[in-house]
Amino acid sequence: MTTVQTESLPLVFHHRSPQFSYTLTDWLQTRFQLLEPDDPNFPNLSHSVRALAVAGPSPLTAENIRQFPSLELVVCGGVGVDHVDLAECKRRGVKVTNAGDAFTADVADYAVGLLIDVWRRVSAADRFVRAGLWPVHEIFPLASKLGGKHVGIVGLGRIGFEVAKRLEAFGCEIAYNSRRKRTQVPYSYYANVSDLATNSDALIVCCASTKETYHLINKDVLTALGKNGVVINVGRGALVDEKELVKFLVQGEIGGAGLDVYENEPHVPEELFGLDNVVLSNHTAVCTPESMAALKSVVIGNLEAFFANKPLLSQIVIE
Amino acid sequence: MTTVQTESLPLVFHHRSPQFSYTLTDWLQTRFQLLEPDDPNFPNLSHSVRALAVAGPSPLTAENIRQFPSLELVVCGGVGVDHVDLAECKRRGVKVTNAGDAFTADVADYAVGLLIDVWRRVSAADRFVRAGLWPVHEIFPLASKLGGKHVGIVGLGRIGFEVAKRLEAFGCEIAYNSRRKRTQVPYSYYANVSDLATNSDALIVCCASTKETYHLINKDVLTALGKNGVVINVGRGALVDEKELVKFLVQGEIGGAGLDVYENEPHVPEELFGLDNVVLSNHTAVCTPESMAALKSVVIGNLEAFFANKPLLSQIVIE
Repeated sequence: MTTVQTESLPLVFHHRSPQFSYTLTDWLQTRFQLLEPDDPNFPNLSHSVRALAVAGPSPLTAENIRQFPSLELVVCGGVGVDHVDLAECKRRGVKVTNAGDAFTADVADYAVGLLIDVWRRVSAADRFVRAGLWPVHEIFPLASKLGGKHVGIVGLGRIGFEVAKRLEAFGCEIAYNSRRKRTQVPYSYYANVSDLATNSDALIVCCASTKETYHLINKDVLTALGKNGVVINVGRGALVDEKELVKFLVQGEIGGAGLDVYENEPHVPEELFGLDNVVLSNHTAVCTPESMAALKSVVIGNLEAFFANKPLLSQIVIE
Repeated sequence: MTTVQTESLPLVFHHRSPQFSYTLTDWLQTRFQLLEPDDPNFPNLSHSVRALAVAGPSPLTAENIRQFPSLELVVCGGVGVDHVDLAECKRRGVKVTNAGDAFTADVADYAVGLLIDVWRRVSAADRFVRAGLWPVHEIFPLASKLGGKHVGIVGLGRIGFEVAKRLEAFGCEIAYNSRRKRTQVPYSYYANVSDLATNSDALIVCCASTKETYHLINKDVLTALGKNGVVINVGRGALVDEKELVKFLVQGEIGGAGLDVYENEPHVPEELFGLDNVVLSNHTAVCTPESMAALKSVVIGNLEAFFANKPLLSQIVIE
């Protein structure tokens, strides 16, 4: 066992909620003097903490932040930072970083995977075969072709761009909704999500989860999407009014859904378990060894940049 | 009901095996005088039959072909024509057409869907969630990233090209094996499938099924592919030595498989039903309404072109 003289290293508080098993200890302990929440020295050291690393989706409240009068930096391990009180960070002048591009490609790949799965009925076919039904029922419902379909990207950020790039290779027509129209983008822009839904065969939800985007995909949007429309959500559960979505799916008022995130994880509405036009996954779009390695790099990189007075790698703009 | 005076229409024999429910009757009966196998006039009309339409994968043997001394054309409804005795057609100078490009995009989409599903564990996640395991087991195995992976395409025909195009958008590195090296193709060529397998993280099998390609993916190729390698088969079951594949999967000697076709359909080896690194579907890669409409066009188009002495739309080269 190697003993590390952590006292000479920069001090970082490891913020983590006991409800999650996420931990950054292995990644950070040899590079920083890591102050854990249950450290008996916490009262002596908290006033000196300038940087804080947040494990997974552990909520970071204004009250948490007030424990650190010298705080200047909050390093997060996700793309979304809706678990952090950004208003308090802004008020205090605390900078916040996220996972940057660590997850971008994997989430985009997964979104496309979910869309192909729903439209081409891949998981449904797998279930059909494993249940031994193929030799019994010769008829299996026709799927939907990807080429020529209109796909609406809700939130044309890094992930949205990568989703669009991939779906173009399948011959899909791309349009998007975003807070503002992007310049130099070849895709049609809709200022209103309902208008985008009206003109889309599927919506890919991959925008940031904020107060403004809470339940962005609501009853009106689902109605506009229509009976054959598909919802893919790889953003956050809060972006979709889940009760309405379940109702629309159960009543056959939309065509299908591919969901990696939910409003109350790990709870998934059981009404969906019997539906063949739905693909359900466990917030796993980012879970590859390559993503984890990239996340480790960006978390450590942001902390090292901060302590070296260099530009942060993935600072977010708090609006 | 409209009565069609079929006697004035060109005569087409509708070849179909009683073991399949496939039929071309609806598509052809208003455009041609359709001679069915059980027609009492068969003995009087068979000698005049110049064109024959084959429903689904109904085997067309040399003996079948000999019933039609005036035969000039066999119109097939699939991409693969391994159910037709091509040697006999060649000997008799009978031309053969296939589905042309009707299925190309859908099969390519499905191959990519199966690959994403295996690598990103989409169906496995869906099973995990539906079984109610997410709240119980917090840990779900990491998946594999697509970007940077080496994908070997076995058979760079129309479907193979479309698979390559799609996977490039995910950042995969493409190589291929084919009977001969293609000019003006940016992908690495391997004359030997084992060499391709050695240098690939996944093989996408989408070549024609012929005597030469029977069990092309055998024990040696699977060994070369290695413990993390994945096999996707959207071609024909006969292209893969299924017994060996099952053995390799059960023993963990390859990384996974996505299979839409099997050696003895609709039989699927039950040893695979318990494996999470395998995605199984029921020869459904071509089954979209758009594919079916495109197939109808090409089947009718070939027959109409033949009777009008125009060039066929999708004649295959018999080697």
